[in-house]
Amino acid sequence: MSGASAEGATRAARPIASSRRAGFGFDLHARASTSRARLGTFHTPHGAVETPAFMPVGTKGTVKGVFPRDLRAVGSTMILANTYHLHLRPGEALVKELGGLHRFMDWDGPILTDSGGYQVFSLGHIAKIDDDGVTLRSVVDGALVRFTPRGVIDIERALGADVAMAFDQCPADPTARADVEAACERTRRWLELCVRRHRELGAEETGQALFGIVQGGIFADLRRANLEAAVAHDLVGYAVGGVSVGEDRDHVRAGIDASAPFLPEDRPRYLMGVGTPEDFFDAIERGIDLFDCVTPTRHARNHNAFTSRGKVNLRNGGWKRDGAPLDPECDCVACTRYSKGILRHLCTSEEMLGPMLLTLHNLRFFHRLMERIRAAIAADRLLELRAEALPAMNARLSPDAAGDAE
Amino acid sequence: MSGASAEGATRAARPIASSRRAGFGFDLHARASTSRARLGTFHTPHGAVETPAFMPVGTKGTVKGVFPRDLRAVGSTMILANTYHLHLRPGEALVKELGGLHRFMDWDGPILTDSGGYQVFSLGHIAKIDDDGVTLRSVVDGALVRFTPRGVIDIERALGADVAMAFDQCPADPTARADVEAACERTRRWLELCVRRHRELGAEETGQALFGIVQGGIFADLRRANLEAAVAHDLVGYAVGGVSVGEDRDHVRAGIDASAPFLPEDRPRYLMGVGTPEDFFDAIERGIDLFDCVTPTRHARNHNAFTSRGKVNLRNGGWKRDGAPLDPECDCVACTRYSKGILRHLCTSEEMLGPMLLTLHNLRFFHRLMERIRAAIAADRLLELRAEALPAMNARLSPDAAGDAE
Repeated sequence: MSGASAEGATRAARPIASSRRAGFGFDLHARASTSRARLGTFHTPHGAVETPAFMPVGTKGTVKGVFPRDLRAVGSTMILANTYHLHLRPGEALVKELGGLHRFMDWDGPILTDSGGYQVFSLGHIAKIDDDGVTLRSVVDGALVRFTPRGVIDIERALGADVAMAFDQCPADPTARADVEAACERTRRWLELCVRRHRELGAEETGQALFGIVQGGIFADLRRANLEAAVAHDLVGYAVGGVSVGEDRDHVRAGIDASAPFLPEDRPRYLMGVGTPEDFFDAIERGIDLFDCVTPTRHARNHNAFTSRGKVNLRNGGWKRDGAPLDPECDCVACTRYSKGILRHLCTSEEMLGPMLLTLHNLRFFHRLMERIRAAIAADRLLELRAEALPAMNARLSPDAAGDAE
Repeated sequence: MSGASAEGATRAARPIASSRRAGFGFDLHARASTSRARLGTFHTPHGAVETPAFMPVGTKGTVKGVFPRDLRAVGSTMILANTYHLHLRPGEALVKELGGLHRFMDWDGPILTDSGGYQVFSLGHIAKIDDDGVTLRSVVDGALVRFTPRGVIDIERALGADVAMAFDQCPADPTARADVEAACERTRRWLELCVRRHRELGAEETGQALFGIVQGGIFADLRRANLEAAVAHDLVGYAVGGVSVGEDRDHVRAGIDASAPFLPEDRPRYLMGVGTPEDFFDAIERGIDLFDCVTPTRHARNHNAFTSRGKVNLRNGGWKRDGAPLDPECDCVACTRYSKGILRHLCTSEEMLGPMLLTLHNLRFFHRLMERIRAAIAADRLLELRAEALPAMNARLSPDAAGDAE
């Protein structure tokens, strides 16, 4: 279902830009003419990722409710795990002892570990940040835990993902300039420490790349300065962080505009923790290649589905007698083997199969959207795809409207 | 993985005994020489079931935590659903409207619906039984619900399983003779009403068989009388009910001994709600062909696994660093792709994937055990298999013992 071969056929014989280092590399195949959208391939020791791509989140070493085999079947190529959660339980030493993160997650494709910087932001009420790192209480057993730039790189090295994210500070309020400035300064200094530790460990030569993270909140000058300090390290890839943390959509767009265009064109660009179909179009048009978010999996567990015709809340009583598929355009098991009425029964009965099916559907929906976006960039018609597809996806599908339509 | 072809090779060219009616039938292929164990094939409109067989329970229209495709892969051939639960939610009319039970469960193999008799027993505190039926409060919305023999057959006909169970009364205390006698009398009269309604509906001709249920508690004479009344109806199959409802193992065996040998040899014999590997050997040696129980799926959700080396509680801290498979003799995804240490992490982290994997494992374990039992009956060495396999299965596997063994 991945559509990779179709993409191959539309590519130029040679990339427009390319980087190669150890087991990593990035090929830029095409640029859109009406936006900064890019078509690329990110190469890792565990395989290639066609970009733009969405990476499902496997916080504690499992994408919730999904067998790894089925992840592959719905089109996932690269997945995430969370350094913070795996450090607390079961601990990186045990993950390593049990065979490393790929074995632990039963996933032989590329994996990326975040660094815990975002968890520090989201757990701010129990975290104490100083110039050298962060101290917080474990949500597992209440113990005090210390995260430092060097320490996080050591944890990520032991976990063994293909991509380790640098330890950054995500400012709590992206509009508070003094706080953002301080966070940028820490992020800059911590990145130096991360890069040094990563080199000491010889990580890149043994299969693990380091990505730097650009902070700067809504301030273009701070983002630019933070970005240039990061790019000076000549890393395998870069991320845009601290975006979509509560600010409005215009500020989100401005934050990406102040970052992505200035990143080297031959390296992958990853927008952290985003998001929704509209976010994807916004960010891809601004030059982003990689995404991760818990939206598809978390929404599924709350019985909410993304579809080509709008968002569907399966608990809505109006779906009770609905014999039509959740999304007639989708090829996933939930859409080809079940009707909305049956899915609703599974959800209202609190059966595991409801979230299991909806998780596969939502992931398939996100991956299919990325496939369509890649095809549209190749055909240089991304804006047309946005105009055709996004308004319906953004709507909420109500049972009455569906009844009219079918 | 089903081993059906291997079984075919060991069979006599023609069955010892056989019955055929509408889309149903039973072939008796072999009998053990040292016990009443039988090897058979139960034919239904949705396919054949090699017996002895275990049927997973899909109470509310889904075997909890399992995709139907994976049920097939671990060796399930026939599954159950619960009339009582599906009547309360979503209601048999809606199941029928949405395509019937096979569509509803995405299962194109045989399905059996119980009749609610056992739920009346297990929900005795909220049920009021009279000579004509049972009144109880819905666990879904608190409404008063009435079950009668005719009404239950109507519900089961609307659901559309291959096999409908008659509505019986399972006495609360199988050792209280007066109560058991009263329950037998009701079960006998209710079976007449069920048979009459089932014939009025022309159910058998349109793909649904009726099984009668034999009650009688621990009393051989009551069981024999109840059985003869049931057999007089010349049904497609028969069940032994009211066994393993709290009485000791000797009484369980006696209850089966007082029933199974007197059932017609050319009809399938189903022991309801049982149970464990030891139960299977006990009952198969006494002439039982079919089983259902929630043990494999419920134990899995409680992080307990059945293995060839004993029962395993995955939450036990001793498995933390265990890099060995759960059951080295098992070919399921949990045993071939994960170690006990990783499974333990998934369970202690309360991740869905833990129960999802353990459910597949426990079902595979039960089905593999039945495959081994069928092969042993064919080779007339069932007692040897019991002596070789059961003691280890019955033990509790402790991490220290496992450490010594590995």
